Amino acid sequence: MRISELAAASGVPLPTVKFYLREGLLPPGDAIAVNQARYEESHLRRLRLIRALTEVGGLPLKSVNRVLEAIDDEHLPLHELLGVAHYALEPSAPADAGPMRDVVDALLDDLGWNINPEAPARRTLGRALATLSDLGRAVSPAVLRRYAEAADSLATAEVAAVPAEASRGEAVESVVVGTVLYEAVLDALRRLAQEHHSSQRFGHGAARTR
Amino acid sequence: MRISELAAASGVPLPTVKFYLREGLLPPGDAIAVNQARYEESHLRRLRLIRALTEVGGLPLKSVNRVLEAIDDEHLPLHELLGVAHYALEPSAPADAGPMRDVVDALLDDLGWNINPEAPARRTLGRALATLSDLGRAVSPAVLRRYAEAADSLATAEVAAVPAEASRGEAVESVVVGTVLYEAVLDALRRLAQEHHSSQRFGHGAARTR
Repeated sequence: MRISELAAASGVPLPTVKFYLREGLLPPGDAIAVNQARYEESHLRRLRLIRALTEVGGLPLKSVNRVLEAIDDEHLPLHELLGVAHYALEPSAPADAGPMRDVVDALLDDLGWNINPEAPARRTLGRALATLSDLGRAVSPAVLRRYAEAADSLATAEVAAVPAEASRGEAVESVVVGTVLYEAVLDALRRLAQEHHSSQRFGHGAARTR
Repeated sequence: MRISELAAASGVPLPTVKFYLREGLLPPGDAIAVNQARYEESHLRRLRLIRALTEVGGLPLKSVNRVLEAIDDEHLPLHELLGVAHYALEPSAPADAGPMRDVVDALLDDLGWNINPEAPARRTLGRALATLSDLGRAVSPAVLRRYAEAADSLATAEVAAVPAEASRGEAVESVVVGTVLYEAVLDALRRLAQEHHSSQRFGHGAARTR
């Protein structure tokens, strides 16, 4: 298809498609004439992935680029790719272990989860727990455990959903998309559930709680 | 305490504290001399809340400001405050209903959740579902239901955890902090659980999946 058709089919504006081509996020098409190239289904797929990561996942282009490079790196084992996706998703990860690392390590140990010592989510979790503690709202081990169990049950299903016979490209996309987009699904559902339960509890007699 | 002590106790750099004062995110202290004011425990508490929302929640200052205004508005019923916090958390909410609104409405109806028709998370959820569908990964009703149940179980506990005898200020802070910070806890745990299950499935024989 032509570049204008590619733009229309992906829902990405034409100038943005051209920008992605210049920046190398989208590989060039096959030149069929001066200033004209033909694009394939794979280009459309890649554009949709970029759009999903930026628009729904909220990833900056630099992070999207890192994820795409990892997808394209045939030598990177599938499992490590998940790490790259996670690194791209976390806010800049400083070198230190971060606050409450001991609590995080003890929890993961207790859960028996096999996690890279450098996994950025360890730091993110410790930081959230430390902040809650600073606000006088330390998370109890029982509550933390409840969140871990909910996360475990979702992740079990997510990883199992990667088709066994998937090609590397498909498996990789499935993992990245799952990490980013299902997080948006889960967060939105949690807010909706909060609203429901909050309306049940506070909706009719809100004045009494003042 | 003096402004320098306030900065030290909150972990917020002094120039940032001064900036928050100028911008009205932090109320002024009691003037005790020319160019000197005394700050209370309430200032420290507010600074910690701002820091939690910006650093861990990733909220832009404009959104933090909207949340703080809602907290300070004594006439706003508690339940509506949750709505303000949710609005502040969602990316800009356009006026249209967004994609896959029918699927979202049917799900919420089916779950029996009492949700404002204008709740921004409806749109966020529809957008995530539409994007997954565009990527050829439409979410099945059973999977969506599983996420909804996980969200429901967490939100039930979160809303129940707001102390019955809490003052309005405490209840409000509890709700806002719960929305923003427990989301960070949950997302981090989900990534860790994904890493664990991915390592179980792909860790040792990643090459085979290529």
